[in-house]
Amino acid sequence: MKLNVGMVGYKFMGKAHSQAYKDAPMFFPDAPKPVMKAICGRDPEGLAQAAAQFGWESMETDWRALVARDDIDLIDINAPSNAHKDIALAAAKAGKHIFCEKPLALTLADSREMLEAAESVGVKHMVGFNYRFAPAVQLAKKLVEEGRLGRIYHYRAWFLQDWIVDPDFPLVWRLDKNIAGSGSLGDLGAHLIDLAHFLIGDMKEVIGMSETFIKERPMPSSMTGLSGKGSVDAPKGPVTVDDAALFLTRFANGAVGSFEATRYALGHRCTNAFEINGSKGSVKFDFERMNELQVYFGDDSEEVQGFRRVLATDPAHAYMNAWWPAGHTIGYGQTFTHEVVELLHAIAADRQPVPNFRDGVACQAVLEAVERSIVERRWVGIEEM
Amino acid sequence: MKLNVGMVGYKFMGKAHSQAYKDAPMFFPDAPKPVMKAICGRDPEGLAQAAAQFGWESMETDWRALVARDDIDLIDINAPSNAHKDIALAAAKAGKHIFCEKPLALTLADSREMLEAAESVGVKHMVGFNYRFAPAVQLAKKLVEEGRLGRIYHYRAWFLQDWIVDPDFPLVWRLDKNIAGSGSLGDLGAHLIDLAHFLIGDMKEVIGMSETFIKERPMPSSMTGLSGKGSVDAPKGPVTVDDAALFLTRFANGAVGSFEATRYALGHRCTNAFEINGSKGSVKFDFERMNELQVYFGDDSEEVQGFRRVLATDPAHAYMNAWWPAGHTIGYGQTFTHEVVELLHAIAADRQPVPNFRDGVACQAVLEAVERSIVERRWVGIEEM
Amino acid sequence: MKLNVGMVGYKFMGKAHSQAYKDAPMFFPDAPKPVMKAICGRDPEGLAQAAAQFGWESMETDWRALVARDDIDLIDINAPSNAHKDIALAAAKAGKHIFCEKPLALTLADSREMLEAAESVGVKHMVGFNYRFAPAVQLAKKLVEEGRLGRIYHYRAWFLQDWIVDPDFPLVWRLDKNIAGSGSLGDLGAHLIDLAHFLIGDMKEVIGMSETFIKERPMPSSMTGLSGKGSVDAPKGPVTVDDAALFLTRFANGAVGSFEATRYALGHRCTNAFEINGSKGSVKFDFERMNELQVYFGDDSEEVQGFRRVLATDPAHAYMNAWWPAGHTIGYGQTFTHEVVELLHAIAADRQPVPNFRDGVACQAVLEAVERSIVERRWVGIEEM
Amino acid sequence: MKLNVGMVGYKFMGKAHSQAYKDAPMFFPDAPKPVMKAICGRDPEGLAQAAAQFGWESMETDWRALVARDDIDLIDINAPSNAHKDIALAAAKAGKHIFCEKPLALTLADSREMLEAAESVGVKHMVGFNYRFAPAVQLAKKLVEEGRLGRIYHYRAWFLQDWIVDPDFPLVWRLDKNIAGSGSLGDLGAHLIDLAHFLIGDMKEVIGMSETFIKERPMPSSMTGLSGKGSVDAPKGPVTVDDAALFLTRFANGAVGSFEATRYALGHRCTNAFEINGSKGSVKFDFERMNELQVYFGDDSEEVQGFRRVLATDPAHAYMNAWWPAGHTIGYGQTFTHEVVELLHAIAADRQPVPNFRDGVACQAVLEAVERSIVERRWVGIEEM
Repeated sequence: MKLNVGMVGYKFMGKAHSQAYKDAPMFFPDAPKPVMKAICGRDPEGLAQAAAQFGWESMETDWRALVARDDIDLIDINAPSNAHKDIALAAAKAGKHIFCEKPLALTLADSREMLEAAESVGVKHMVGFNYRFAPAVQLAKKLVEEGRLGRIYHYRAWFLQDWIVDPDFPLVWRLDKNIAGSGSLGDLGAHLIDLAHFLIGDMKEVIGMSETFIKERPMPSSMTGLSGKGSVDAPKGPVTVDDAALFLTRFANGAVGSFEATRYALGHRCTNAFEINGSKGSVKFDFERMNELQVYFGDDSEEVQGFRRVLATDPAHAYMNAWWPAGHTIGYGQTFTHEVVELLHAIAADRQPVPNFRDGVACQAVLEAVERSIVERRWVGIEEM
Repeated sequence: MKLNVGMVGYKFMGKAHSQAYKDAPMFFPDAPKPVMKAICGRDPEGLAQAAAQFGWESMETDWRALVARDDIDLIDINAPSNAHKDIALAAAKAGKHIFCEKPLALTLADSREMLEAAESVGVKHMVGFNYRFAPAVQLAKKLVEEGRLGRIYHYRAWFLQDWIVDPDFPLVWRLDKNIAGSGSLGDLGAHLIDLAHFLIGDMKEVIGMSETFIKERPMPSSMTGLSGKGSVDAPKGPVTVDDAALFLTRFANGAVGSFEATRYALGHRCTNAFEINGSKGSVKFDFERMNELQVYFGDDSEEVQGFRRVLATDPAHAYMNAWWPAGHTIGYGQTFTHEVVELLHAIAADRQPVPNFRDGVACQAVLEAVERSIVERRWVGIEEM
Repeated sequence: MKLNVGMVGYKFMGKAHSQAYKDAPMFFPDAPKPVMKAICGRDPEGLAQAAAQFGWESMETDWRALVARDDIDLIDINAPSNAHKDIALAAAKAGKHIFCEKPLALTLADSREMLEAAESVGVKHMVGFNYRFAPAVQLAKKLVEEGRLGRIYHYRAWFLQDWIVDPDFPLVWRLDKNIAGSGSLGDLGAHLIDLAHFLIGDMKEVIGMSETFIKERPMPSSMTGLSGKGSVDAPKGPVTVDDAALFLTRFANGAVGSFEATRYALGHRCTNAFEINGSKGSVKFDFERMNELQVYFGDDSEEVQGFRRVLATDPAHAYMNAWWPAGHTIGYGQTFTHEVVELLHAIAADRQPVPNFRDGVACQAVLEAVERSIVERRWVGIEEM
Repeated sequence: MKLNVGMVGYKFMGKAHSQAYKDAPMFFPDAPKPVMKAICGRDPEGLAQAAAQFGWESMETDWRALVARDDIDLIDINAPSNAHKDIALAAAKAGKHIFCEKPLALTLADSREMLEAAESVGVKHMVGFNYRFAPAVQLAKKLVEEGRLGRIYHYRAWFLQDWIVDPDFPLVWRLDKNIAGSGSLGDLGAHLIDLAHFLIGDMKEVIGMSETFIKERPMPSSMTGLSGKGSVDAPKGPVTVDDAALFLTRFANGAVGSFEATRYALGHRCTNAFEINGSKGSVKFDFERMNELQVYFGDDSEEVQGFRRVLATDPAHAYMNAWWPAGHTIGYGQTFTHEVVELLHAIAADRQPVPNFRDGVACQAVLEAVERSIVERRWVGIEEM
């Protein structure tokens, strides 16, 4: 079985998805084979380069044309967030399966509209929460589901980065609320929330706080990308998103939770971490050591209790049998391979992949509840949303 | 110079303080020499054993008698918390210096009364926040003070224990609000708050949440101490304190903060930890590895940036020149030696030791603000207190 | 520029090389593009499956036919070790560039013959010491070369695995001297030696010891592969290679060294580790955390000296600019991408890639010196070889 | 029961022993109580200060006088190594129990003479290998003895320090063979050997190598102690001991072993570390984190295998019930308390303490075998000694 893919977007995520489509058939030959049919973007020159470099068969500069093509089975959306909704609605209307990067949309209402559109026509839909697909995270999920951690008491999550600590770092689009919608909360917090949903379940209520530490930054030169540096002498503009956001949670199952997202934690390039404490055991994860899960069991014999550093690269660990012998690690890029494999298998089996738009909506609901709690300085119930 | 000590209490803290008095003259000969003059407790038999075992010269079974003795310069209070206030007020009235374990008192009002009493007569007063005296914590303080971390953006603190995860663990006095006053918040959270005050400064407002996961436990048999286990078949009684408490903070200097205290984090015996993120650097500390501080500097050259694991046992580190050659670690007990040395030096220099009752009061104010925020489900300003 | 590749072998290494050829053009578009022209193996069925799965354009069941093809520029040899020599000699004779997996050959004499053959016709030759291509290892090399570690005093290397600790694990071909040539020494020790050559330079003399702990094992059933388990009740046969090998070294530059290779270190799946101590600094590496290098500088200021955990994923680190933003790790598979990129760039620039057959020969010389030192129970000079 | 102690020496080890005598009765009240009766040294002024500071009742400036005193039960020898033998022989002759610091003597012959002298008169004798008394090391021993690691295959030990990396560090007595006898081998290697004997058992044969990296150093000024720095401009003298020493071992039980001792490993203040690999499990220890033992069991279930970081501070761990609640660590100083408690209990029970002079002799035999193997460049059997 083959599946023809049309992809909108060709930057960071476009590259990650392309590698996944390329490598999946090699390491997961039992899944349907994705065919890299067409790539779509607005800038013909950049697009052509990406198509050649990533190995796509054809190009489209208008996503409407892509969606209209008969030879496309799946639309992969990793264009800027504010374009997600329109593309997804059109794809659903055209009866295409949809793989959409997070955040699903800029608002909860939009994301719900996308979910309904996809569900109403019966296509498969997936949202790009790739961190779920680290084998160590899958192991955490399995331990929770098998009851090996017991009743969950406490969930602790933090996503720490440090790429804008320099006050002269320019005012890139991610720092502009009109374009990015949100700052650390929507960017990093969204991942934290999705992992919590995946591992622990729904939240009941939240209360948060946020801060913008550097309120003005030099305007970027036209050439400045995400990681670019503009001129220090450039005129300054206001930062309109949060630099850091924190919130407390009460989960539906009674557990308490704390969440922290920041772009101002020097020394942390990509610390996407969580800890779960249950009545029978605990686990800890840090994405900077993504092949490892720290696991503690309360019923280990008395003298030799301690967190075990499990290197999740054994054949027993999710997806790892497909790669290398035990002890040979994988990286960030491979989480996308696993994600794509889940999507392909789901389509083949005529079931919804996980995580799908329902998960995207659930995440958006918590994000908006947190934002409301910050503005109104009070606890906000998720059911309010 | 010598200083005659009279100590009330002879359990866990009594033992820790006794070792400190014993060892201080050997490792810190420049400080005044504490003389272990008299130990005081209500149970004559237990007291006699403690006096012999710890090496105290005499005994008193009534603290009033101890306070009245002419040959006592310093009253060391490590009796149960609800006794702190009366003893301290009497000691102040008698013109004795006071060294009081944390928490200073059960209420903010009481602790303020104690502070005023001590200040009005001009005696020296100290409160027992011993974690400040780990050399690695002193190094963190020094880096903050010297500006090497820059402007502080984020403070993260967590104190995790696991000693009551077993639901059959009996209802010891620490789980009874009438006696203990508070649960994880007052016990563990107090240490977190004091370290934050020490390292970062005052807080402006807080909002918290707490939970009691196991609401009933077997009544302890008469023999059950802190770590004892009663009969599983014993009748049950209600747990009246919090098992876990979390809160968010905004500091006076603009930094954001998160705090978590729990006795339900399996795998953590005594994880008293913090991380500080500033504009120039970050530090991390975990008491289970109390000789180490993780230090990151943003201006390290590009290729070799990373958290340094500093083993704070070099002669350059606070107090360490007194102990062993570099690389030879100290333990929990030695934090009390340092604490006592600070007290002795302060008395000799006719200055207040640090931390003193002011710090105890400041900690109590935050604790009560957090409690109010939990009850009233709203942000509470510290100045309200 | 394109380069047509013909690959002999399609198992573990064949898969790793195939992924490298696939991904290289996507992440390193400046290098010549490898074309996956033909794959070669003896079993037509297995070969056909591999060709389809990995994406090779055509197949050959006889390597002589492959070598004879006009449309092949580069012969990639990852067939069993005992086939390396004949294929390489034929490839050289045919004027093809050669990329040969380690070990270059079963004997030092053979490897020298291969080097001479390749050199005499002027083709490019590379040997597959892929661990050099972890960015953290490249960083270690750079620090040594820039003199930032000063004069090197001590090199410590250990490669620990645990895949044959179970005495019922069958007698696979890697445990048969006739086929594998050597055990832990040739398999794991070879990587240790190459990294030492890369990082520190030549050795002067060695003395070693080895041991075979389990001397008999069940004969494997015909279906048993590397990781398979045969029947416990199967008749037993003798293990004819070493389970563990250790040796001491004196380097040409005066440094002392210790090396340990074992397949009997429970808990270690793939601990390929080294530490270098110099007069100005030290570094530590462990492949199980391949994205990290621990770096210590003696001239860091006194209070904040400590090993820095450098996450070698910044744009400043070798090869990493091609992948993801800082903090997003890579895995084992990506070391082959880098290796292939070095090969492609070298061919384009008409220079020998590094490591090449000279490095393979140098490694083989040390291996044989160690073996001789074990047999003759004496120090053996490398120049004896 | 009380025991009167007379101690010869009052520097580093004298201080460590004094703290142990002071603290033992407080934390281990069931052991006989040591009475700090007399301290002995040659310099009256330094001695008087030490006596006052450490809390000894009386002084002697001649160890012969001390040994002759009727009120002394135990002679504690921590004077310079070259004085050990005479004092011990005299003490034995006088019927005193003996506690002697390592190394027992400067030569194997001397140490044997000391053992025979003590045995012939039936006094108790102990040698100061304090590292055995870290609770984490005791746990390792227990796991080995209970067979939980299975058959031992591999022992790996390294003691790394960095205090003389600076070439201008003066030529202190520890670098003079006439006084110190040996360098890194006798100082650090002796500890490694003793731990190996304790944990694994006897060795069969060894082969070693050593190096002196900095062959000349400035003569120290008269004031320079162990850690002092003399003048860079001082005339230079030859370093006559080894800076680093390495050796390989075959144990009597068939295990292989590697040992490394160096004072030139920047970043390591006191890394006294070992790893044991057995057929059922492995353990790892590093003295810089002396409260922890890493423990791996091969029979842990497949998905959750990994080294456990056991914090050896639970009541179940050796000696820890006497100190603080779980999670509250101890330091270097407390290993001496445990050592002294073993000695006191042994005397009370009329049995030899462990480790005793037999262990001191066994260690010396290996040290001399290593030295011979270095000189003669060959494997040396321990039974040769």
